[in-house]
Amino acid sequence: MARPLEEVIGAIGPLDEGAMAQARRRQDSLTKPPGSLGRLEELSVQVAGIRGQAIPSASSGLRSSAGGSTSSPRRSGRGLRLDHKAIVVMAGDHGVVAEGFGLYPQEVTRQMVLNFLRGGAGINVLARHIGARVVVVDVGVAAPLEPHPGLLSRKVACGTRNMARGPAMSREEARRAIEVGLQVVEEESARGLDIVGTGDMGIGNTTPSSAMAAVFTGRPVSQVTGRGTGLDDARLSQKVAVIERALQVNHPDPKDPLEVLAGVGGLEIGGLAGVMLGAAARRIPVVIDGFISGAAALLGVALCPRLKDYLIAAHLSAEPGHRLVLEHLGLRPLLSLEMRLGEGTGAALGISLVEAATKLLAEMATFGEAGVSESKEN
Amino acid sequence: MARPLEEVIGAIGPLDEGAMAQARRRQDSLTKPPGSLGRLEELSVQVAGIRGQAIPSASSGLRSSAGGSTSSPRRSGRGLRLDHKAIVVMAGDHGVVAEGFGLYPQEVTRQMVLNFLRGGAGINVLARHIGARVVVVDVGVAAPLEPHPGLLSRKVACGTRNMARGPAMSREEARRAIEVGLQVVEEESARGLDIVGTGDMGIGNTTPSSAMAAVFTGRPVSQVTGRGTGLDDARLSQKVAVIERALQVNHPDPKDPLEVLAGVGGLEIGGLAGVMLGAAARRIPVVIDGFISGAAALLGVALCPRLKDYLIAAHLSAEPGHRLVLEHLGLRPLLSLEMRLGEGTGAALGISLVEAATKLLAEMATFGEAGVSESKEN
Repeated sequence: MARPLEEVIGAIGPLDEGAMAQARRRQDSLTKPPGSLGRLEELSVQVAGIRGQAIPSASSGLRSSAGGSTSSPRRSGRGLRLDHKAIVVMAGDHGVVAEGFGLYPQEVTRQMVLNFLRGGAGINVLARHIGARVVVVDVGVAAPLEPHPGLLSRKVACGTRNMARGPAMSREEARRAIEVGLQVVEEESARGLDIVGTGDMGIGNTTPSSAMAAVFTGRPVSQVTGRGTGLDDARLSQKVAVIERALQVNHPDPKDPLEVLAGVGGLEIGGLAGVMLGAAARRIPVVIDGFISGAAALLGVALCPRLKDYLIAAHLSAEPGHRLVLEHLGLRPLLSLEMRLGEGTGAALGISLVEAATKLLAEMATFGEAGVSESKEN
Repeated sequence: MARPLEEVIGAIGPLDEGAMAQARRRQDSLTKPPGSLGRLEELSVQVAGIRGQAIPSASSGLRSSAGGSTSSPRRSGRGLRLDHKAIVVMAGDHGVVAEGFGLYPQEVTRQMVLNFLRGGAGINVLARHIGARVVVVDVGVAAPLEPHPGLLSRKVACGTRNMARGPAMSREEARRAIEVGLQVVEEESARGLDIVGTGDMGIGNTTPSSAMAAVFTGRPVSQVTGRGTGLDDARLSQKVAVIERALQVNHPDPKDPLEVLAGVGGLEIGGLAGVMLGAAARRIPVVIDGFISGAAALLGVALCPRLKDYLIAAHLSAEPGHRLVLEHLGLRPLLSLEMRLGEGTGAALGISLVEAATKLLAEMATFGEAGVSESKEN
């Protein structure tokens, strides 16, 4: 059994200011004009604060003496290495698809889970590209899924109920969905986990994500609702109307995050919030994907505001509500490639940038080590 | 000896429309909503057009029959693989540093070349991260550099002359600098080269880059001149005044690109234009770095407008003129991380995204292969 939610939230501490200050000092000692690595420098400092480790080993890399060191710069820096990378893809179904405006049949959720397990989906390709493993979790797929060595079967329910007619799930199911995420992080940590990306699969899941975004950001539904997999104008209007109805039926209170998830959320969205909280409690950086992960982050931050410090926004999705979600969270995306696939595909690309940032901090030579003259103004 | 410039320019052909159409068709058959990979889809199509190969081998991957294929999706796609990646870093010095507004002494160019050769610079870290080799070329460092197995010694001159008082180099030197780039591509191709990134090192080289940007874009010097490694307001004003003086002294004609390079350019900038042209002639995609590479691209495209189709802009530099340069070239950057280090650091990150795009095209399963239902509107 995973630890209860409240205990995990209580375990999420502040970032390590000492490690961050040390990382900033080292950035300024590296062979480049100060600040010239831009957001990669900020990222390295954030990761240092999350991990509580500035850099290299204590005995190397911080030498400020002049003259070329004979040790290879690439040897230092094991402390901050992100060797163990995972994308957790939570899959769930949505009763609201009964409203009929979507483009893909519900069975695609199950079919795509099988595609993940065979290695043929976008996230599989990108995870291989960045050297991450894909962790596939059935937290609420409507159809039965055969046992498979690559599948974590953690079904809380066979999909949610139709939120346009009542709550998507019970409050107890909402809590269990989040705790599935907590537990997955526990298990994955045991296998080695230095950074985690969040991914989703669930036909119809931009609909609950928009509903949650409307509740947590206070924006009108129309501003946080987009075309998902490619709706035309008529279907988009129908989607907005369904979400507005779901909010009227459930009128969730943003001050009660579990009630929001139960009323208008999704099982995989709850699961992803659990992944985020569980990772933060273990001081593991979390790279969040697009709009669905953004909804999960809103939920997670509503449960624990400090979670925000552990989150890195991989990309700005083509789904228009995503920008408003990230603004509300105070996160700046690293990439803006007009992607809107989900699965953690954006998170995978973001993880590679975070890893690049930490490698720069750990492996670049300092001015002293390399015998390079510093700025006249230093 | 490399082929003469005119012959290389003549060898640059149009993109392969057939391969691009085939790549687009395959994108629409992959297990994702059409278009949901955003700019990664465009990139894969561009690379297919450059390489003249859409995808996989002819016998696999394009099957449209229903039912799961038993062959692993990751096996297909060797045709478009970007296994051999290189960042070519051209180093040169600039006589204009005698004007005295810069922050770093000229000797840093040579010191940083040594840092590249020892593997301690930012570009070394990022090249290792993406699995690329770094090719270091001395095309015009002012100081002597000892022979080193990792250094291509192709010095055209010991730095340029002070462009504020006369031409930076002779027309003959300008041509030779470009031909160094052509020759490097020839040699690197023999070692295997599927994609190339451009990088620069040269204390003071944002100054000639701004001058070239002003000439080729027609913008006022003040709009295309920035703080480089970190100038304050007073030094920035001095820099603008020096560039304006250089343009008055040399008044280069944008219709005569070699004259622009000779008058207000740099040896490494010429060399990088040569890399771009040489790569395009061999149908190798070119990922361009920041502001200095942007100036080289302006030169290259002025010599051969078709070059543009072979260029991919890795990132938007923090140097303010870069945005105007990319707009003039009609290129959209992939990343915007406020980087301004040069060396090819942005290009390295861009190459990783291009490789991700081509892997997605080559390795993702199709709807038919994976047995996934397509959109109701298909």
